[in-house]
Amino acid sequence: MIPRYSRPDMVAIWSPQSKFRIWYQIEAHACDAMADLGLIPRENAEAVWKAKDVEFDVDRIDEIERVTKHDVIAFLTHLAEHVGSDEARFVHQGMTSSDVLDTAFNVQLTQATDLLLKGMDNLLAALHRRAHEHKYDIAIGRSHGIHAEPTTMGLKFARFHAEIARGKTRLENARAEIATGAISGAVGTFANIDPRVEAHVCDQLGLTPEPISTQVIPRDRHAMFFATLGVIASSIENIATEIRHLQRTEVLEVEEYFSPGQKGSSAMPHKRNPVLTENLTGLARLVRMAVTPAMENVALWHERDISHSSVERMIGPDTTVTLDFALARMTQVIDKLVIYPANMMENLDRHRGLVHSQRVLLALTQNGVSREDAYTLVQRNAMKVWEDGADFRAELKADPDVTAALSEAEIDDKFDLGYHTKHVDTIFDRVFKT
Amino acid sequence: MIPRYSRPDMVAIWSPQSKFRIWYQIEAHACDAMADLGLIPRENAEAVWKAKDVEFDVDRIDEIERVTKHDVIAFLTHLAEHVGSDEARFVHQGMTSSDVLDTAFNVQLTQATDLLLKGMDNLLAALHRRAHEHKYDIAIGRSHGIHAEPTTMGLKFARFHAEIARGKTRLENARAEIATGAISGAVGTFANIDPRVEAHVCDQLGLTPEPISTQVIPRDRHAMFFATLGVIASSIENIATEIRHLQRTEVLEVEEYFSPGQKGSSAMPHKRNPVLTENLTGLARLVRMAVTPAMENVALWHERDISHSSVERMIGPDTTVTLDFALARMTQVIDKLVIYPANMMENLDRHRGLVHSQRVLLALTQNGVSREDAYTLVQRNAMKVWEDGADFRAELKADPDVTAALSEAEIDDKFDLGYHTKHVDTIFDRVFKT
Amino acid sequence: MIPRYSRPDMVAIWSPQSKFRIWYQIEAHACDAMADLGLIPRENAEAVWKAKDVEFDVDRIDEIERVTKHDVIAFLTHLAEHVGSDEARFVHQGMTSSDVLDTAFNVQLTQATDLLLKGMDNLLAALHRRAHEHKYDIAIGRSHGIHAEPTTMGLKFARFHAEIARGKTRLENARAEIATGAISGAVGTFANIDPRVEAHVCDQLGLTPEPISTQVIPRDRHAMFFATLGVIASSIENIATEIRHLQRTEVLEVEEYFSPGQKGSSAMPHKRNPVLTENLTGLARLVRMAVTPAMENVALWHERDISHSSVERMIGPDTTVTLDFALARMTQVIDKLVIYPANMMENLDRHRGLVHSQRVLLALTQNGVSREDAYTLVQRNAMKVWEDGADFRAELKADPDVTAALSEAEIDDKFDLGYHTKHVDTIFDRVFKT
Amino acid sequence: MIPRYSRPDMVAIWSPQSKFRIWYQIEAHACDAMADLGLIPRENAEAVWKAKDVEFDVDRIDEIERVTKHDVIAFLTHLAEHVGSDEARFVHQGMTSSDVLDTAFNVQLTQATDLLLKGMDNLLAALHRRAHEHKYDIAIGRSHGIHAEPTTMGLKFARFHAEIARGKTRLENARAEIATGAISGAVGTFANIDPRVEAHVCDQLGLTPEPISTQVIPRDRHAMFFATLGVIASSIENIATEIRHLQRTEVLEVEEYFSPGQKGSSAMPHKRNPVLTENLTGLARLVRMAVTPAMENVALWHERDISHSSVERMIGPDTTVTLDFALARMTQVIDKLVIYPANMMENLDRHRGLVHSQRVLLALTQNGVSREDAYTLVQRNAMKVWEDGADFRAELKADPDVTAALSEAEIDDKFDLGYHTKHVDTIFDRVFKT
Repeated sequence: MIPRYSRPDMVAIWSPQSKFRIWYQIEAHACDAMADLGLIPRENAEAVWKAKDVEFDVDRIDEIERVTKHDVIAFLTHLAEHVGSDEARFVHQGMTSSDVLDTAFNVQLTQATDLLLKGMDNLLAALHRRAHEHKYDIAIGRSHGIHAEPTTMGLKFARFHAEIARGKTRLENARAEIATGAISGAVGTFANIDPRVEAHVCDQLGLTPEPISTQVIPRDRHAMFFATLGVIASSIENIATEIRHLQRTEVLEVEEYFSPGQKGSSAMPHKRNPVLTENLTGLARLVRMAVTPAMENVALWHERDISHSSVERMIGPDTTVTLDFALARMTQVIDKLVIYPANMMENLDRHRGLVHSQRVLLALTQNGVSREDAYTLVQRNAMKVWEDGADFRAELKADPDVTAALSEAEIDDKFDLGYHTKHVDTIFDRVFKT
Repeated sequence: MIPRYSRPDMVAIWSPQSKFRIWYQIEAHACDAMADLGLIPRENAEAVWKAKDVEFDVDRIDEIERVTKHDVIAFLTHLAEHVGSDEARFVHQGMTSSDVLDTAFNVQLTQATDLLLKGMDNLLAALHRRAHEHKYDIAIGRSHGIHAEPTTMGLKFARFHAEIARGKTRLENARAEIATGAISGAVGTFANIDPRVEAHVCDQLGLTPEPISTQVIPRDRHAMFFATLGVIASSIENIATEIRHLQRTEVLEVEEYFSPGQKGSSAMPHKRNPVLTENLTGLARLVRMAVTPAMENVALWHERDISHSSVERMIGPDTTVTLDFALARMTQVIDKLVIYPANMMENLDRHRGLVHSQRVLLALTQNGVSREDAYTLVQRNAMKVWEDGADFRAELKADPDVTAALSEAEIDDKFDLGYHTKHVDTIFDRVFKT
Repeated sequence: MIPRYSRPDMVAIWSPQSKFRIWYQIEAHACDAMADLGLIPRENAEAVWKAKDVEFDVDRIDEIERVTKHDVIAFLTHLAEHVGSDEARFVHQGMTSSDVLDTAFNVQLTQATDLLLKGMDNLLAALHRRAHEHKYDIAIGRSHGIHAEPTTMGLKFARFHAEIARGKTRLENARAEIATGAISGAVGTFANIDPRVEAHVCDQLGLTPEPISTQVIPRDRHAMFFATLGVIASSIENIATEIRHLQRTEVLEVEEYFSPGQKGSSAMPHKRNPVLTENLTGLARLVRMAVTPAMENVALWHERDISHSSVERMIGPDTTVTLDFALARMTQVIDKLVIYPANMMENLDRHRGLVHSQRVLLALTQNGVSREDAYTLVQRNAMKVWEDGADFRAELKADPDVTAALSEAEIDDKFDLGYHTKHVDTIFDRVFKT
Repeated sequence: MIPRYSRPDMVAIWSPQSKFRIWYQIEAHACDAMADLGLIPRENAEAVWKAKDVEFDVDRIDEIERVTKHDVIAFLTHLAEHVGSDEARFVHQGMTSSDVLDTAFNVQLTQATDLLLKGMDNLLAALHRRAHEHKYDIAIGRSHGIHAEPTTMGLKFARFHAEIARGKTRLENARAEIATGAISGAVGTFANIDPRVEAHVCDQLGLTPEPISTQVIPRDRHAMFFATLGVIASSIENIATEIRHLQRTEVLEVEEYFSPGQKGSSAMPHKRNPVLTENLTGLARLVRMAVTPAMENVALWHERDISHSSVERMIGPDTTVTLDFALARMTQVIDKLVIYPANMMENLDRHRGLVHSQRVLLALTQNGVSREDAYTLVQRNAMKVWEDGADFRAELKADPDVTAALSEAEIDDKFDLGYHTKHVDTIFDRVFKT
């Protein structure tokens, strides 16, 4: 977790305070359930709630842990300091540390996911706005980095909207994966605790009881969760790559917003670097690198080993904090992206009309010219454009063999960009109206 | 794709024949749609179906490709050899190669997924059977490889059943991700082709039209698909790891089936190696290694670059073939797994009753012994077991301080394994009845 | 291994024939050593060499393996068919299958590495030639995709030469890592075989005896080997990325060679796609994906488990075949790369002299203008260039405040591109003369 | 970077203070070199050294950066506050920010590597000691987790010693990879700075000048560096896995040291978990996960893009801090590992002599019994051991068909464990005397 790539709300979820707060809630709700079942006295359950508004003292807990070398015991000891030793004596009864740790980790992951989902909503809103704003602004489409056929800037944004919307659905699925809790004891048999305690705690925390746990909640769930974050990060990289390309000096169809006060070089006004999207490219790699260790975490030995724990201590906070930051930064980039329609048109017309050669070819054949002859006609005029810098439309109109087959109006029609945008509405309906 | 780790049905999906068959279907259905729309003559569309039962000649297509250096053109040329040049002249009209390639790839992926889903069903059936067969067969549960509390062999199978069932749901989601088709032209604008052609082709092939494509179907879909295979492979590794552990010489609670005729050493009857599950561990790594490149494939340049193509040529077949084989092999392992309940009990009782020390401790305190005294009582008897090889229950019964607090019947009760299995039914209901 | 991304020499290394040939040599040399040590009769050792020129029958060996379910036994049985059962009775004495398998695998890896090293030499030769050819051909250097300061096309090639040369040194180190053999028996103790047999076999095969093996050669060696291939592949991607950028329509400073006969569009002469380097980008991902499983292979259980085997069956051939192909393809790309110096100059001058603004600024301050004033002078002229399309040098010469500080000759001097190339020789000496 | 998995010396290398200290040294040495070359006044160079003992104020630098949005400028501004604006005016002349950033990063990496090398030396010393201590302590060797032939505990440690020693050589190579510096200007042409400045700065910092840089030092070097850390981490995992296996309840040949005061359960004395080695398994995954992003960082666009930067901000500190901690923890584990030779012997003899069956078989044939008969003899006695719990040696001695071929002394000889340790000296010499 790197401060400059972090936002406070997400960081707060991963603070020791937040963690101990959740541990407390698990223990308190478990006591309630045990009291409901007549397993412990009601007053002991109620006593635990005395600490409801306590801000737990992290330093004190750490101090106890240095003695006990066990984090959950340290917390419980500190809790007893607030609740009273005697009142607290049924706290954690029949439970195992992992019941608290795993359930709490999943609470943190669901909270983190909710922030990420909000972040995706914000990004979707920005993409939606920019897509409609530039819905019909024509730009050359490129395959292999080479000019192909016209498209529109709005379609680019719409495409990213569709991709991020898919990402959001995936993230909702991933949230369901890890929104489970387990209070099932040392090997998951409920030998020392009633399954109804688990049901109550999960219900209170917005989780589903894990159908079958061992000492731990199965880690295929978390593997799926982190894999999903990796896919979303890859989509961020996809958008970032497009912007970086469009901002390069020779293309300059878009530019990351550069605030007037921002340190830059007026002596070199072209030197505005797409550093935000370059940064996002790197951040995507950071989120993605957690996918493999999360998958390696799945194969725990027997009813559990603790090899997954150190991995999750790092990737839990790091991936969610980084992705949260990346979503916010990308939203800001999209929101303020400066778009240059004039440059888009200039690039489109870089080859002086050649982009329309296919349509002319087709028109010639449709008007009865043989395929071979049509090809020759187009080629000889295309070559004048390519080699001598001529204008394609003008050359065609000056070629009697062409005009024998196509009227001037027909030629002009083949240069109509509207031909390429006629289905933009259809596509937008598909993307935004479903 | 390695022959020894391949099964013929999955391999067939990835054969050139299968691919060309799908290409043909795409082109033929597209012609139908164009004829329906009045864009091409009906008889030309119908003529294409003349090749309905043709086995396309892969060598011939390769031969043409060596000249044209373009696989789709080579195929179309060969198709025309069957349909007739003139009749075939509207085939592929307005389409771009990727329309065919990407749609066909997704058809192959959905077919492959259907086989994988069947493979998961078979594995689930085997796990279901073995879980119920050994539902109450007690074994020691282990955390950190160290004995913890009793569990049952059936719970192990049930746990894997739940994990594979989650995997199946994930795979169904992943199938939906890649079950899309696109017939949208060079940059996805439908400039030269009517969107209704795409709708018809997709409908005929069991796909959904991609809401917005560029030249290609967006690769975040495939990243999610391959990531899902990676998670499922990790679950395979999880099961394999458990079996490898349980088969080791000192544990020997289960054993991979070893056929009487199989080459093995009767002179060393203990030398039966869990080679199938070790192999499955390696196969899991092979499936998983495709996840990162699939994610790197997402960020294509502009409306497409072809960097993803070589990656998919390899990981498309390799991951599905390998996972298919792994599912089948794991099913066979589970189906025939030899289970040794006697060894399970012997291991459980390895520490001569110490596994029950926690329950005794609790019982003492519940019968009024102070926590400190109870601990001392348990500890001094436990140490005799640990250091002198005594029997824990016998020692307890011989300790007057213990028997002052617990009757013999009460002591016996604490050694009742039924205590640990009382919720097995509940857990089975959660796993198998939902 | 995909035929279209494979070259025959590398494929041959991984054929069953090659493998069995190496197995044979190991067994025959081991017999020689045992005869030298007086452990087996000389005539039995000599008899094995009767099969020296035999082409082993892979189908026959497979047939035997289907019965024995053991590949080494199947081979030995087939070998005995050539040598004679009785004569062959000491073959493999005291050895374990892994002695043969692991030593043979390392022989294959060293052979593969030697081909890769040749491939790197070829690539280095091409880069060397092109670097010197374009040593002083000026091009704009870019950071963040934005124009920075001038550099030369030769420096780009020189940079890649230095990188590939580093890669070659790494590969030589990696070769030493895996150029070991082990003939040490079931758990590596030489209980049943004399260490001098290992020494002789390794010596004959160009390997070093593994100082300490278990049943297998330790896999950290192979992890390092495959990691090194991954780094080299990443360097291939680096070069490929540069070419893809330089070929894009708006830049067009280089172009992959496009043969006159090659299928392309004369009607769209700009549509020449950098498909080879895009393909190389994908191939790099394929080589790289083997790195993680190779590292996961290191932690084998106890003296060995067989989880690494299936992984290596795939990544051994796949990574070396793919990287071999990639090196050859990249060599061809570099060799034939079409370079457009005129376009390079046109791009450089895209901002009509602004690229020199920093030098002008510095010159003004060196001639006594205050830093603030100098900045203002440069900025106001730069803005005319940026906003009105003026020429920077002309504007400067027309600005009396500028000419008060700088003579026309001094201004011209600041636009001298030689300023940027004055150390090219120094850099070339560093790269090519060491 | 997680506090609980961090050691202060390594953390200190990555502190802002350390970073700014290196930045300062680069700038100060560069001024010296420029003064030596007569490019700037000597007194200005000397003035910079006034800040030699200054502890730079990180908060102040951050404060300036919030205005300038540029970290190097912020530092230079703060430096001028110490040196004096006028005196400092030649600082950084002709340099670009990356000259400072990249060179400083490599200084940090070399410092980090030196600590890691020390950590490896400590681990090697511990392995050396334990190897010799248990050189002849016999334990059963296992393949596939199944008993194979005897080996010794010392050989296990020797094996890990050899592996870590290889790791150290690799790390030394990796250190050389990243021990380079570059002071070459905006695109690496030395347009505005003399190459001799670079030479001097590198010499003072213990670096080698990068033969050819662009704006940045090429990232294939860092990819190789992080890949090497990944291999070393995998070796850590290898050792950890062995210990985890040997500590499991049913094996218990070794145990992580458990301090008398450590919180544990005397009531369950068997419940000592190998948590340190499990933790090391997870830490290995964390180090390894940086390998792929480091490789993805290689392909920067043109003369640089900044996508690598965020990745390195995280993986630079995280991997070195984690690996440093892991090496220290593993050293402690090895140093204090409790070894149970009695359990080793008990496990070895688990099958009551069957481990020697191969030797008996061989002895029978060597004494003239046919292979088939010998096999039958061994098998029928082995089966009594396996099925009835008999003692193999006793059964053999009681079998007249056996004793007809082998004297009692000969039978005893085949049960001599010295047979398996006769080459331990040879192996130790190979490992420790080279």
